[in-house]
Amino acid sequence: MEAEMEKVPGTKIMRETGSHPAVASIGQYGHIMLFFGSASQNLTQEIGSYLGVEPGDYKRTTFENENIFIQLQESVRGQDVYLVQTMASPIHDNIMEMLIMIDALKRDSAGRINVVIPYMTYTRSDKKDQPRVPITARLIANMIEVAGVDRYITIDLHAGQIQGFFNIPGDVLTAFHLLCDYMKEKEVKDLVVVAADLGFAKKARNWAEHLGTPLGIIEKRRLFNTGQAEALTIIGDVKDKNVLLVDDEVLTGGTITKAVDLLRSEGAQDIYLAFTHALLGQDAPQRLAKLNLKEIITTNTLPVPESKQLPNMTVLSIAPLLGEVILRSHEGRSVGQLFNE
Amino acid sequence: MEAEMEKVPGTKIMRETGSHPAVASIGQYGHIMLFFGSASQNLTQEIGSYLGVEPGDYKRTTFENENIFIQLQESVRGQDVYLVQTMASPIHDNIMEMLIMIDALKRDSAGRINVVIPYMTYTRSDKKDQPRVPITARLIANMIEVAGVDRYITIDLHAGQIQGFFNIPGDVLTAFHLLCDYMKEKEVKDLVVVAADLGFAKKARNWAEHLGTPLGIIEKRRLFNTGQAEALTIIGDVKDKNVLLVDDEVLTGGTITKAVDLLRSEGAQDIYLAFTHALLGQDAPQRLAKLNLKEIITTNTLPVPESKQLPNMTVLSIAPLLGEVILRSHEGRSVGQLFNE
Amino acid sequence: MEAEMEKVPGTKIMRETGSHPAVASIGQYGHIMLFFGSASQNLTQEIGSYLGVEPGDYKRTTFENENIFIQLQESVRGQDVYLVQTMASPIHDNIMEMLIMIDALKRDSAGRINVVIPYMTYTRSDKKDQPRVPITARLIANMIEVAGVDRYITIDLHAGQIQGFFNIPGDVLTAFHLLCDYMKEKEVKDLVVVAADLGFAKKARNWAEHLGTPLGIIEKRRLFNTGQAEALTIIGDVKDKNVLLVDDEVLTGGTITKAVDLLRSEGAQDIYLAFTHALLGQDAPQRLAKLNLKEIITTNTLPVPESKQLPNMTVLSIAPLLGEVILRSHEGRSVGQLFNE
Amino acid sequence: MEAEMEKVPGTKIMRETGSHPAVASIGQYGHIMLFFGSASQNLTQEIGSYLGVEPGDYKRTTFENENIFIQLQESVRGQDVYLVQTMASPIHDNIMEMLIMIDALKRDSAGRINVVIPYMTYTRSDKKDQPRVPITARLIANMIEVAGVDRYITIDLHAGQIQGFFNIPGDVLTAFHLLCDYMKEKEVKDLVVVAADLGFAKKARNWAEHLGTPLGIIEKRRLFNTGQAEALTIIGDVKDKNVLLVDDEVLTGGTITKAVDLLRSEGAQDIYLAFTHALLGQDAPQRLAKLNLKEIITTNTLPVPESKQLPNMTVLSIAPLLGEVILRSHEGRSVGQLFNE
Amino acid sequence: MEAEMEKVPGTKIMRETGSHPAVASIGQYGHIMLFFGSASQNLTQEIGSYLGVEPGDYKRTTFENENIFIQLQESVRGQDVYLVQTMASPIHDNIMEMLIMIDALKRDSAGRINVVIPYMTYTRSDKKDQPRVPITARLIANMIEVAGVDRYITIDLHAGQIQGFFNIPGDVLTAFHLLCDYMKEKEVKDLVVVAADLGFAKKARNWAEHLGTPLGIIEKRRLFNTGQAEALTIIGDVKDKNVLLVDDEVLTGGTITKAVDLLRSEGAQDIYLAFTHALLGQDAPQRLAKLNLKEIITTNTLPVPESKQLPNMTVLSIAPLLGEVILRSHEGRSVGQLFNE
Amino acid sequence: MEAEMEKVPGTKIMRETGSHPAVASIGQYGHIMLFFGSASQNLTQEIGSYLGVEPGDYKRTTFENENIFIQLQESVRGQDVYLVQTMASPIHDNIMEMLIMIDALKRDSAGRINVVIPYMTYTRSDKKDQPRVPITARLIANMIEVAGVDRYITIDLHAGQIQGFFNIPGDVLTAFHLLCDYMKEKEVKDLVVVAADLGFAKKARNWAEHLGTPLGIIEKRRLFNTGQAEALTIIGDVKDKNVLLVDDEVLTGGTITKAVDLLRSEGAQDIYLAFTHALLGQDAPQRLAKLNLKEIITTNTLPVPESKQLPNMTVLSIAPLLGEVILRSHEGRSVGQLFNE
Repeated sequence: MEAEMEKVPGTKIMRETGSHPAVASIGQYGHIMLFFGSASQNLTQEIGSYLGVEPGDYKRTTFENENIFIQLQESVRGQDVYLVQTMASPIHDNIMEMLIMIDALKRDSAGRINVVIPYMTYTRSDKKDQPRVPITARLIANMIEVAGVDRYITIDLHAGQIQGFFNIPGDVLTAFHLLCDYMKEKEVKDLVVVAADLGFAKKARNWAEHLGTPLGIIEKRRLFNTGQAEALTIIGDVKDKNVLLVDDEVLTGGTITKAVDLLRSEGAQDIYLAFTHALLGQDAPQRLAKLNLKEIITTNTLPVPESKQLPNMTVLSIAPLLGEVILRSHEGRSVGQLFNE
Repeated sequence: MEAEMEKVPGTKIMRETGSHPAVASIGQYGHIMLFFGSASQNLTQEIGSYLGVEPGDYKRTTFENENIFIQLQESVRGQDVYLVQTMASPIHDNIMEMLIMIDALKRDSAGRINVVIPYMTYTRSDKKDQPRVPITARLIANMIEVAGVDRYITIDLHAGQIQGFFNIPGDVLTAFHLLCDYMKEKEVKDLVVVAADLGFAKKARNWAEHLGTPLGIIEKRRLFNTGQAEALTIIGDVKDKNVLLVDDEVLTGGTITKAVDLLRSEGAQDIYLAFTHALLGQDAPQRLAKLNLKEIITTNTLPVPESKQLPNMTVLSIAPLLGEVILRSHEGRSVGQLFNE
Repeated sequence: MEAEMEKVPGTKIMRETGSHPAVASIGQYGHIMLFFGSASQNLTQEIGSYLGVEPGDYKRTTFENENIFIQLQESVRGQDVYLVQTMASPIHDNIMEMLIMIDALKRDSAGRINVVIPYMTYTRSDKKDQPRVPITARLIANMIEVAGVDRYITIDLHAGQIQGFFNIPGDVLTAFHLLCDYMKEKEVKDLVVVAADLGFAKKARNWAEHLGTPLGIIEKRRLFNTGQAEALTIIGDVKDKNVLLVDDEVLTGGTITKAVDLLRSEGAQDIYLAFTHALLGQDAPQRLAKLNLKEIITTNTLPVPESKQLPNMTVLSIAPLLGEVILRSHEGRSVGQLFNE
Repeated sequence: MEAEMEKVPGTKIMRETGSHPAVASIGQYGHIMLFFGSASQNLTQEIGSYLGVEPGDYKRTTFENENIFIQLQESVRGQDVYLVQTMASPIHDNIMEMLIMIDALKRDSAGRINVVIPYMTYTRSDKKDQPRVPITARLIANMIEVAGVDRYITIDLHAGQIQGFFNIPGDVLTAFHLLCDYMKEKEVKDLVVVAADLGFAKKARNWAEHLGTPLGIIEKRRLFNTGQAEALTIIGDVKDKNVLLVDDEVLTGGTITKAVDLLRSEGAQDIYLAFTHALLGQDAPQRLAKLNLKEIITTNTLPVPESKQLPNMTVLSIAPLLGEVILRSHEGRSVGQLFNE
Repeated sequence: MEAEMEKVPGTKIMRETGSHPAVASIGQYGHIMLFFGSASQNLTQEIGSYLGVEPGDYKRTTFENENIFIQLQESVRGQDVYLVQTMASPIHDNIMEMLIMIDALKRDSAGRINVVIPYMTYTRSDKKDQPRVPITARLIANMIEVAGVDRYITIDLHAGQIQGFFNIPGDVLTAFHLLCDYMKEKEVKDLVVVAADLGFAKKARNWAEHLGTPLGIIEKRRLFNTGQAEALTIIGDVKDKNVLLVDDEVLTGGTITKAVDLLRSEGAQDIYLAFTHALLGQDAPQRLAKLNLKEIITTNTLPVPESKQLPNMTVLSIAPLLGEVILRSHEGRSVGQLFNE
Repeated sequence: MEAEMEKVPGTKIMRETGSHPAVASIGQYGHIMLFFGSASQNLTQEIGSYLGVEPGDYKRTTFENENIFIQLQESVRGQDVYLVQTMASPIHDNIMEMLIMIDALKRDSAGRINVVIPYMTYTRSDKKDQPRVPITARLIANMIEVAGVDRYITIDLHAGQIQGFFNIPGDVLTAFHLLCDYMKEKEVKDLVVVAADLGFAKKARNWAEHLGTPLGIIEKRRLFNTGQAEALTIIGDVKDKNVLLVDDEVLTGGTITKAVDLLRSEGAQDIYLAFTHALLGQDAPQRLAKLNLKEIITTNTLPVPESKQLPNMTVLSIAPLLGEVILRSHEGRSVGQLFNE
């Protein structure tokens, strides 16, 4: 049901939909062709199911000198190609693989090349807050452009400004609706939204607005007299409240652990944790497991292997959202409309 | 005294310095030549005094069709040119004037063209937080690059990421040291630093760290049930405290007025206001005058005409900072070192 | 009647045509979408009537810091967009507005972006006839290209060479047929075409050829011994003739006043004045009113407000010409053919 | 005679200078290195004499497949290279040779590459005055830029706007002072300057101003009722006057022949002919010889072989002008100053 | 018969095909339009016959100053244009003509511009094997790209790497199948494939593989003690064998003459010669005629005028191959599939 | 002794040189600054010793998300920077590290950025010898250019043409003289040079020329009737000869093993192996150890850890060669001269 879909892009329910829309190829760049990089095979299969499109066939070889070699097994001449590759570990291999595939697509005269990068890495290297450092996120944007990409699609960039690092058009989507709607349905009482970091305060405010709750912010500060140590304080009141701790990504789980300890010591009750990008470094699942959280809510912008899934973790799929955006991009229809904005 | 200068770049004391350094022309791009645009004549004179360099001579004509015409009265062939133009009102005229001067400098075979833009406008249009909007700050960066600039120097960008909009090297300086050191000398007791906006929370934290005070944050939230209205709350405690309200720029004074009212109603005592860029729209001085602030501290990145200066306003000069950076840029010496980082 | 239209593109009669062609969307870039900038709202409405296309909806905000903010209210994804903005006063605001709209269109993944600039300003700054001056017209072309435009359409550039400042394709149209055909119908006897300026001599020759008349040229010369003063002489004979004075644009009316005085003193009878671009500075209407001209013939490449229209002034519309060219551009049909060349 | 040559670069005063400047290498790009293309060997030797610099050594081979191969015999690493190549016949070979040499210079890491192109061809293909034609002059500019040139120097472009086809800096010089001063010294009585073409009217006015004479213009017009034929008329009065016919270049001599016939039939007395670029096609010398001109004055921007020199022809050398400009370019001194402007 | 064609692209039989495929215009860039440059008129006619498309009409003028002027007589607006121009003698004129036509096509708003260059010259200038030499093949690629080409098609580049000199997509085809299949049908006994040059060894191995024969290689070596002289030796055994000598192009015939002499002296029997590009310099036909070869097999990538055709020479046409590739390119179908790879 | 050094660049003897040249900073880009990437620390130390320059100080952090972060500890403003990073394993990490360092250098306003890449990987992906594959070597060149490099220095590219993938100047050096001179001193009798691969035949010829020996070539051929298997044959005679087997790089040792077996079975005596790039995959040392080679001669373009060094292996250092080239590059002196060419 089209109307239904418009209303709830990217919800879990959507995934059940057996009857996805027939992909009518009415775009100006031939048919949709879907390719995946090594880091996004499962996700691409899901997107393909949404679109009713089989991922394109290609051969990938890695020689003993670590050189990646790609040979497309189908011609992409004149077609509207969507290459899905998230920047998961090992990140440099996955970035290079993506660029090499783009070169192959370009030299095979693809009609239009769209890269879909659910998680973009190096986005914390987005400014010179110290002298003599790089802005690697801009370098990555330059590399993607010089390889020959026409458009990009990504989700929840660390800073919105990174979209300005690109000179080509792109769709920067958000998993906010997906995550926030899921939380809203729980109708948790006495809830406070708490930003895990000052830099996330503005986005946390959007959560609080959407859920109709107060806002708290965790402040991290260097302690000058004690060397490298940091002190955490919480700005705002969480006593006897249930807390939804929000952030854009979780890597080591270290910051979250300190935040939860602080919240507990300030009298918080049930604590939920929500974030888009499940980087989840080696020790992170173990750390999160110890925190006794009510629920951990995240998405599959990065693959979450079973070994890292915890019993209290819910992984929402962004595949329907990406599928719908690809469809609209191909057919020249509005993407913004998807978000009722 | 060189050592002195290294320690306190851009302080008021520096301005008194009668004996500026002799500008030895040892750079690879000929001599320093200093030019100003219409919006930065006074500032450039000050910088010139610091450097011991007379601003370059040029003729500017505006025809009845509003076309600006520039003719340099001195050759810049092979020289290291610094063009100072802040993006003050009328902003579009000043931007175009700057670009036209760059074209003239380029076509006269300048050795290197540096633009010094103390205040960069359009920096709040730095991301697509709604669909179908521009990222004008990137457009401005593109325009500057395509006009033929080699390097840029600017101060306190609205978001650090905007530096990544440029592909050319640049020095993004800050007036933080200048303003914060000035405040520190006052040794105000029971002080709390309060960010005027969630987006400024991280930088306000630096103020609080530097001054050794707690941090408060003002949160603005749309009220869904009451249309366009917004509600302000303060996160953190200001009761019986003196407050230093900080922001990057002040335009209408409207937000500041609401913030001060809120602070007062929450029991704040003396209130100081500090910000880098004194945009000061037409009604702003009047509004600020009514607030009964202890002191308003700002800089001259934008010209502050006497008519807009209030009795409780202190305007610190960024000319020594810019002069020193130009000198180091020309001589190939470290700029970062200036900030002890 | 299609055939009729082919023959007389841009004549007044065309404007009467109630039944414009149905716009079949057969192009490769989706549908025609028409947008206007602030300076060309009326003209765009007229073009839209010709095409049977409603101008696209967008929201324009100007903040107190003079920043222009644009939000398209309709998606342009994949469509063939024509943005109409003439470079009327205030020129820098209008240029920036145009560029900002282009950025918004580009980032919304428009299929193709065409700018329609009926009058391009800064075109007299098209060469370095003195040392150390800019070539601002090239700068403008660079700015348009870097903003992301695919094609441009304009009318009667001050010098044909300016088309070479662009590296992208464009259609440089002329109002010559429109104006000249209008004049021809009058069948004025004993007519001499006189170029108002040496630089317009070649184009005036085309008028003379088309109307079958002799050619005169007004020569302006600096008088070295008398400072800045200039002397006008007329090359060619106008005694007892009716004169059609031609130029590309009229700004102050000063040159025209001197030319008319000279023509009268040389014995000219009725004097007509024709030019494409009605810049008409503040005092121009008053000056032209005093000249007792038989008729002033111009076009609406620039808006001519009623306050500037004189009783003896005829403003021909270039909207049908632009509409037809947009249609042919969209459908991949010849534009040159329109001019029987 | 060296002194003679020194005597006439541009300004009068400079011409007296017996002792040319010692070339001190104070520039930022190493030493001046001078290279010539096949079409400018003699001119480059002359320039080298002015500068006291030997042209650089290189080996040029043309294989049977017409491929030109260049090997520099001296390293240009880090040096300030001036490559002199005029676009004489065979033009395409000479253009390609120039571009290939530029590539060799670039890949040998030259510090800065300046091309000196005394005569630039294809400059009459500088606008689209008919549909579906190229703007070849812009193509040439693009080719020069893409090959890796940093700056260009040229003389008397057909249209000043062509300078705007380049995005890199350049010096567009003029032989006007050289030619006009030479003519002035003759102190011809009752002189009228006549432009050989409407397009040259504005420059002819400069001649007339400088020499203090009236101006005449020859108008060429297509005769519609008689097919391709053209009719020439003269605008202005030449009866019993001596005439200086001026143009930028002479190719076939056909237009000049018709102009001279017309001038004679209108009662002109002595006729002088002056132009910068002596293209002089195969039959041109013969045609010019028949015209019984008082004197033909031109320059060596193009090589004028002895077989094409007529007894009444004076070829002024532009070598001192180019030498002086190269020197000033290298040393970062003003070039505009050379022309007292 | 489609299936037939797929199997044997570019064979002689294909040329007999009376009924070429109807060109359905289903591509995204309008219709196929075919243009030829001066050097490929006949070939383009042949390609047109294959496609059922008449070459486009245009007017070419060469002025006495050697300037080439092009005016397209048909609009190419929005169409999928294929411009065929081989780089035959006079090479520089033909290169420039091609670039000028591209500029005309671009400025007439062609939908997509494909250049078809059956033989690309300067491809032996593809590396710096000595200091201070150019890489002219890269320069040529840059020139083609900067002129505005979208895609290129060429045949048997001297080195495959040259495809990497282009940043735009292209199809580098080979005449190997055409030539090798023709040879295979002869079923010559006791055949040895011999590479005429060490640099062709790898491609000769493909011939040997395909024909199932041994491989020999001719080695050329400078003799240091005897000045410039070279010595040829053959690596591998040819005694009492029939030999197929293979190379990519033949220019002077000098190398081939020496190779044949050597092969004969080593006991070779019948000698066949096969190569793609028949450059055939002035004395080449005469030299080849003397060699008493069994058969010379080549193609028409370059025009082979009757005066250069020898009785034992077979010229296979690459027109069907090019026609089929153009068709597939236009329709967005695989080209690689043509070669069963 | 300068003269000595000129004669034998890169020989072992040079390494002994205790007294390296004093680095006079006479270049136009400030002083030489030397930085190393992770893969070339030792080599850079050696180069630094040659130049008398300490490598620059910087801090490298790798976060748990694998992001590399660089902070230069010294300012490079205006200096002539040489960044040495070979593309050793892990190749993608090392490539990204290099690019990130370049971005940091660029944004710190380095005067000139030179990358020294002793071994460039992906150079075998330099052409499309199959359909739908990338040309990754060109992609790498684009990435290096877009990151902001001014010049590059590398050694023994797999194909000389790869230099044409770069549009910026570069010095492609060779270890041929270093290796070949070392071999020549051994004065081995009855030596035959054998190319390990057809593609190396031309370079092997240079070895043979230089050593005055015959040439043999190993041919690898696919066997069609036996699936994937390959057959090796040797073209040329090695019976009772000593053999010098040459190649550009050795990775697995597999090809070399087969070649040595074949040579032995054909009656070869002592076998030497020489190659520039010691990739030496995991099993390679073991494989080479079993071959009972007389000597293995290679260089340190890639680090050869002690664990991979065999008793019969000689690793010559390319540090003096690189040091000398850097010195000459900095001082604007000829590099080609180093090779007596």
